[in-house]
Amino acid sequence: MTATSPLAPKAFPALPPIAGLQLATHAAGIRYDERADLFLAVVAHGSTVAGTFTQSLCPSAPVDWCRRILADGDGTARAVVCNSGNANAFTGRAGETAAAHTAELIGEELGIDPDRVYLASTGVIGETLPEDALTTGLPRLVAGLDAANARTWEDAAAAIRTTDTFSKGAAARVEGTAAHIAGIAKGSGMIAPDMATMLAFVFTDLAVAPDILQGALSRSVARSFNRITVDSDTSTSDTVLLFATGEQIDDEIVSVDDDRHDDFQAALDEVMVDLAHQIVRDGEGATKFVEVHVSGAASDEAAEIIAFSIGNSPLVKTALAAADANWGRIVMAVGKAGQAADRDRLAIWIGPEQAARDGVVHPDYSEDRATDHLRQRDVRLHVDVGVGTGESTIWTCDLTHGYIEINAGYRT
Amino acid sequence: MTATSPLAPKAFPALPPIAGLQLATHAAGIRYDERADLFLAVVAHGSTVAGTFTQSLCPSAPVDWCRRILADGDGTARAVVCNSGNANAFTGRAGETAAAHTAELIGEELGIDPDRVYLASTGVIGETLPEDALTTGLPRLVAGLDAANARTWEDAAAAIRTTDTFSKGAAARVEGTAAHIAGIAKGSGMIAPDMATMLAFVFTDLAVAPDILQGALSRSVARSFNRITVDSDTSTSDTVLLFATGEQIDDEIVSVDDDRHDDFQAALDEVMVDLAHQIVRDGEGATKFVEVHVSGAASDEAAEIIAFSIGNSPLVKTALAAADANWGRIVMAVGKAGQAADRDRLAIWIGPEQAARDGVVHPDYSEDRATDHLRQRDVRLHVDVGVGTGESTIWTCDLTHGYIEINAGYRT
Repeated sequence: MTATSPLAPKAFPALPPIAGLQLATHAAGIRYDERADLFLAVVAHGSTVAGTFTQSLCPSAPVDWCRRILADGDGTARAVVCNSGNANAFTGRAGETAAAHTAELIGEELGIDPDRVYLASTGVIGETLPEDALTTGLPRLVAGLDAANARTWEDAAAAIRTTDTFSKGAAARVEGTAAHIAGIAKGSGMIAPDMATMLAFVFTDLAVAPDILQGALSRSVARSFNRITVDSDTSTSDTVLLFATGEQIDDEIVSVDDDRHDDFQAALDEVMVDLAHQIVRDGEGATKFVEVHVSGAASDEAAEIIAFSIGNSPLVKTALAAADANWGRIVMAVGKAGQAADRDRLAIWIGPEQAARDGVVHPDYSEDRATDHLRQRDVRLHVDVGVGTGESTIWTCDLTHGYIEINAGYRT
Repeated sequence: MTATSPLAPKAFPALPPIAGLQLATHAAGIRYDERADLFLAVVAHGSTVAGTFTQSLCPSAPVDWCRRILADGDGTARAVVCNSGNANAFTGRAGETAAAHTAELIGEELGIDPDRVYLASTGVIGETLPEDALTTGLPRLVAGLDAANARTWEDAAAAIRTTDTFSKGAAARVEGTAAHIAGIAKGSGMIAPDMATMLAFVFTDLAVAPDILQGALSRSVARSFNRITVDSDTSTSDTVLLFATGEQIDDEIVSVDDDRHDDFQAALDEVMVDLAHQIVRDGEGATKFVEVHVSGAASDEAAEIIAFSIGNSPLVKTALAAADANWGRIVMAVGKAGQAADRDRLAIWIGPEQAARDGVVHPDYSEDRATDHLRQRDVRLHVDVGVGTGESTIWTCDLTHGYIEINAGYRT
C-alpha cells in the first residue's frame, strides 16, 4: 500500500445528509481483501439523473450500459452501484452480461426497474467480473443500506478507491435554500481532459428537471474534471453521475431562468472543482499541486490547449518535481502546442516571480526566488502568449519516481 | 554523467569517408568542460543542401536562420556549425545576433558567404550563447578541419551530444555506385513525432539537385525521425540537414526517374532509420526498445495516430518497464486515440503471443509467455483495430526511474 499523498487534505470532510439518499458498502472480495469494494446509492422514487462519460472509443461495459439507459429512459433513476478492483472493460459479451446481471440483481433486491440502476466499475481492464462475488455480494450490499451520514459517506468514498491514497468527498449548501449538494469521487492516474476521466457520484436534495440537471452537469464538468490532468491518459470507464432527489425541496427547477438555478450551478461547480482538485492532489506519485494559467491566447480554447501542453509535458513535470525553475521547458511546451503564440512577446511567471518578458529572460528575474516558490506544495505557473485575450486555467501535478513506482507494479 | 544506455550498440560504427567533406571539433567551454562542444562540417563548392526543422512555434534562433537561408538561397551550401550545451532558443534579439555572428565568423575564416553556413544549437533554453567562447572558439574550430575519417566522424558525433549516453552514427553505400551516405545524430529526450525532433547531419558524395534532395529527405524523415517518440515533447531546435557534395559522382541526379534515385532513397532511408532507432535506444532512462505496429485502421494516418497514442502513453510505458503484460493499458491507449477502432474486433499481440482477439482475452493466451517476451531488450507490440487496412509502425522506449532522474537534474 502506498503512503497517503503529501497533498491530501488533513481529513475526510464532514458531508451533510442528503434527503432521499441511502448509501451502502460491502466487501465482496472482487480483488481487495479486507476492504469494501462494492458501493450502492439508492435515491428516492422520482429522482432525476444526469451523466457524462469517457470519450474513449473502447468504453467499458458499464459505460455502455449507463449511456443506453440515460438515453432511453425518462430522466429518472433509482440507484447507482459501483465495484472497485475490476473495470469490466474489454470483456466483450461476458462483460455486457455481467453488467446487465448486476443491474437485474439490484433491481430484484430493491423491487425497481433495472433500467433505473446505473453502473460503474473501476480497476483492471480485460478480466471478466466474477459473477459469484456479485451474486452473493449484491444482496448483502442492499441489506446494508442506511441514510447518508458522516460514516456512510466516508465508507462510500473508501469503497470506490483503487490506487487512490485517500478518500475524496466534497459538499456545499445551495445558497438561499435548505438543500445541499454532496458527492464522492475516485481517481489518481489516467486523469486527462477528455471528460471526467474518473468516477464521481454527486447528489442533491433539490428537485431539478432532467434537462436542466444535464446542462448544469455538463457546464460543471467543463470547469472542473475537464481541466485536470495527471498523465494525459484516459480511462475506459470514466463516469460522472448527478442525482437530484427533490426530497428537501420538491419545487422542481425546470428552467435556467429559475431564480435558484445560478445558486445551484455555483454550488455544483464548487463541489465538482473541489473533487477534481482532490484527484490531482492524489495524482500518482504527486508531490506538488500545480495550477497552470495561460493568458493572451487567440481564444479560450487555444489557451486551454496550450495550458494542457504545459501540464502534460513530462519535461515540465519532472522539472517541477525537482523545484528546477527550468522555464525553457515551458517555452518548449508552448511551442509544441500548435496554437498561435508570439515567441517575441512571450511572458512567463513562476509563482509571483516573472521569469521572462518579450521573449527573453526578465531583467529582474531571480532564479532563487522562483526556486523558493517551486519548493512549495502548491505551485502556480502563468504564461502570456501575447497574441489575444483568450484565457484558461488547468490543474496538474508533478511527475516523480512515485508515478513509475505505482504504475510499474499496479497489478502485482 | 549517466551510464551508457543498456540499449546502445556495442561500438560506434566505422563510417566511410565522404569525398568533398571535412570535419572538425573543438572544446570551447560553452557548458561542458574537457570535451568538444563545437562541430563543423565543410562541404565542397557547389554542394547542394536540404533540411527539415522543428514544428515548434517557438523555434530557436539557429532554426530561424537555417529556414531563411534555405528558402532564400540557390540550394547550395558550404558548411554547418553546431554547438552543444546552449540551444540559443528563446534568447530574443541577442540570440539572432549570436546566430548571425557565428555564420559571419565561419564565413570569414573560410572565405565563404555566411548565407551558405548552416547553424544548429542544442542544450539549455533561454540563455544567451556566450559570444566570447564563439569569438575565440570558432577560428580554432576551423583550424582543425580534416578529411572525414573514422576518428573525425566519432569525434563529431561526440561533440554534438548533450544528455546522450552514446555517440550516434550510421552509413550506407548507394547500391550500384561508389558513393556513400554517412551521418551523425544526437538526441535522447524531447523526441516526438512533430518532425525530426533532434539533430542529424547527413552527407553523401553523390550529386543531387536541390529539389530532388529535399524530396528524398522529406520522405525519409517521414519514415524515420517522424516515427519515433520518447516522451512526446518537442524541442525548439530540431534540425535535420542533408548535404550532397557530388565529389565522388558528379553526374547530378535531377529527377526521381533517374535510375539511381531509388537506390539513393533506399540508402538514405537506411541511414535515417538507423539514426532514428539509435535515438530511441538512447531514450532518457530507456531499458527497452519498443516497436509498436498498428494494423486494421481506417487509414495509414489513423494507424500512426493510434500507434503514437500507445507509444506515448505513460501507463503503457511504465508497464513495459516492469515487463508487466498489462494489455488493458493498450486498450486504453487505443480508446483515447480518437481514431476509428472496433472494440469488439480488437486483437493484440505481445511479441509472438496473442493476448486478445475479438475484444476479449485470447483463449490460448499465456501471460507467462507474454512476460517472457517483455523481459527482452527489444519488445514488439502489434494491435489490429479491426476496421480497415491502414498500417503504421513506430518506435519508442519504456518509461523508467531513469527518465525522472535525468530530467529532474539536467541543469544542475
